[in-house]
Amino acid sequence: MPVNLSAPEALAPVPGIRLGTVSLGVRSEPRHDLCVMEIAEGATVAATFTRNAFCAAPVTVAREHLAVNAPRYLVINAGNANAGTGPAGENAARGICAEVAQLGQCEAHRVLPFSTGVIGEELATAPFEQMLPKAFSALSEDHWLQAGAAILTTDILVKGISRHFQMNGRDCVLTGIAKGSGMIRPDMATLLAFIATDATIAGEVLQQSLDRAVAKSFNCITVDGDTSTNDSCVLVATGTGDSDPVDSTEDEGYPGFCQALDEVCLYLAQAIIRDGEGASKFITLKVDGGRTVEECRQVAYTIAHSPLVKTALFASDANWGRILAAVGRSGIDALVVADLKIFLDEVLIVENGGRAGSYREAAGARVMAQDEFSIRIALGRGGASARIWTCDLSHGYVTINAEYRS
Amino acid sequence: MPVNLSAPEALAPVPGIRLGTVSLGVRSEPRHDLCVMEIAEGATVAATFTRNAFCAAPVTVAREHLAVNAPRYLVINAGNANAGTGPAGENAARGICAEVAQLGQCEAHRVLPFSTGVIGEELATAPFEQMLPKAFSALSEDHWLQAGAAILTTDILVKGISRHFQMNGRDCVLTGIAKGSGMIRPDMATLLAFIATDATIAGEVLQQSLDRAVAKSFNCITVDGDTSTNDSCVLVATGTGDSDPVDSTEDEGYPGFCQALDEVCLYLAQAIIRDGEGASKFITLKVDGGRTVEECRQVAYTIAHSPLVKTALFASDANWGRILAAVGRSGIDALVVADLKIFLDEVLIVENGGRAGSYREAAGARVMAQDEFSIRIALGRGGASARIWTCDLSHGYVTINAEYRS
Repeated sequence: MPVNLSAPEALAPVPGIRLGTVSLGVRSEPRHDLCVMEIAEGATVAATFTRNAFCAAPVTVAREHLAVNAPRYLVINAGNANAGTGPAGENAARGICAEVAQLGQCEAHRVLPFSTGVIGEELATAPFEQMLPKAFSALSEDHWLQAGAAILTTDILVKGISRHFQMNGRDCVLTGIAKGSGMIRPDMATLLAFIATDATIAGEVLQQSLDRAVAKSFNCITVDGDTSTNDSCVLVATGTGDSDPVDSTEDEGYPGFCQALDEVCLYLAQAIIRDGEGASKFITLKVDGGRTVEECRQVAYTIAHSPLVKTALFASDANWGRILAAVGRSGIDALVVADLKIFLDEVLIVENGGRAGSYREAAGARVMAQDEFSIRIALGRGGASARIWTCDLSHGYVTINAEYRS
Repeated sequence: MPVNLSAPEALAPVPGIRLGTVSLGVRSEPRHDLCVMEIAEGATVAATFTRNAFCAAPVTVAREHLAVNAPRYLVINAGNANAGTGPAGENAARGICAEVAQLGQCEAHRVLPFSTGVIGEELATAPFEQMLPKAFSALSEDHWLQAGAAILTTDILVKGISRHFQMNGRDCVLTGIAKGSGMIRPDMATLLAFIATDATIAGEVLQQSLDRAVAKSFNCITVDGDTSTNDSCVLVATGTGDSDPVDSTEDEGYPGFCQALDEVCLYLAQAIIRDGEGASKFITLKVDGGRTVEECRQVAYTIAHSPLVKTALFASDANWGRILAAVGRSGIDALVVADLKIFLDEVLIVENGGRAGSYREAAGARVMAQDEFSIRIALGRGGASARIWTCDLSHGYVTINAEYRS
């Protein structure tokens, strides 16, 4: 079950954004799995995508369309990733965009397609042709929760959050939804996050704010080290609020917006870990005292991806030897064993290359018994630090991924 | 259960090598867990050790002793890795060497210590002082099988093999034993392998032959990507046979010896994967058509370490989308999706960025149903290739590592 996460009870509408969901009717169990997001004319849109060399067909098409003009529609399906589907997959993504464009009376390049689910299955477009008109009929500002549910795959809970903030003394709103549970080690943005605000923000500034927020949130989480083929994060500023336009990062309203955006991205990124496949622990990995941020991240990810550390976390076993072995193989140049310290929350467990003299197994066990705690590595060789979030490796993960065809 | 592996019925004695095993008496279940290997005066010894920055105390001491003089004794204990034990651990390793040296009437630096087991537990030396005399009394040329059993931890089966070969028309023998099942992603040699021959080979040539053989065997396997703190591989040439001495890699007898050594190392390395923690599948990963061997290995290890690929292997699910996603995130520069092909044994499953036209799910399922098969990635961008071996990620792995304190 997700670690200290509940589904949002409500999400605030964002003026200028309407959402409609519907079932494509191709699943064994009936649930909404198609979502259309309508974006008001005049909005600015920023996006980040996976760096996986095998990006999915919709990612290719979305990147291409985004370069042409600001989008009017996003179309998202769950259950089929339309990845590893070759030219036929790209045709399917383009066909769906054309269909949405016709219903929305805009050009096809003003539609961005997104898919999540099984890799390598052909995406049939007939169900889209049949169901898209119903999704359009359902368009409403009040459907963020439904949209959050329609984009899920192995996720247990809807992940969404709203933040109200002020820009130049005017009230603005920011709402975001995300999905993702396995194949999570985003290298740009995580598999499908959609965030919108009614503030008025120039495209370039919006992209900068998103890159900055993603670097500190979605790009700092890992479930299994597997970067998805479909990762995409989209941020829309509809400009329908009455705040002054932000045309530069120097503008007065920018910091307030960035703070709200950071909070939303961090909440959604952490929610993905809390609802990670089979997760029973939510772990914050802090590495400080490094020479560079990059080496701190390298140490953190080596620990976060170690199957031995992850299974020890699952067992609530304060097995610091495995953490130490992971740090040792992380490839950091000229690491001095004796300078390093390891903490579980505030409990010092390793120093001088071995178990700390003050350490008692009971103190470590108390920390590990919690469903949420931190592991801190003090490298003792510089002033850089990094922080990432991960979960444990449980029988649940093996069961889900041995049974689910992703 | 180990994949297509049985314990050796017999191992050939190597003239010049005697082995004695005994129980340290510190385990709940009684079994031999201490082994002394006596090496004849005049032998040459080569070794490779872990590159983990946190190498264990015995590795530090063994490296130091090896640099001084050819060893007369190896002393190996299983159950406690004497790693992450700080200065006390190093003192313990030195104390044990001194004890062996006294019994064997040689200098302490002619003893190499080896340990495997739990990391971070203090290694008590009193049981060694008490039991080492019994191990010496037990020394015999015929105790290779007992030694193979005494060095095991989570391993299910003894791993050992003998090869007879000719050097300059004379018969020689080569026998090796190894242990290792989890924390296996050797970066030099795998956790404890001991190999001996009665051939006469100069120290430098012996080290070259070992480096060469290890690069193609122990350094090409992975269970969980976790490089151990204790990896060590030792090769002894006792020179007690009547073959001509080999002083150079140009000598007539060298190729025959190398072939036997390669076979022994490859058998032992593969045996470790077959007996990998929780393993139910033995997988050969072949990557060819790369620009460099390094990039081929990078692709192969990214696949081999992907929890999603490993759980799909456990489920016998021909989930090529996960393989493709792993290749895509492996960090290869300017990879062209359309040029890549993926095969399961001889079955072409991916080409042109998607499922091969000729591919039928039933053909993939037939390959995956086997307990042993290959995954081949043809990168289509050069002439380099690499091959590694790995196993699946099963509930067994999680159970073992959630319960075992390594």
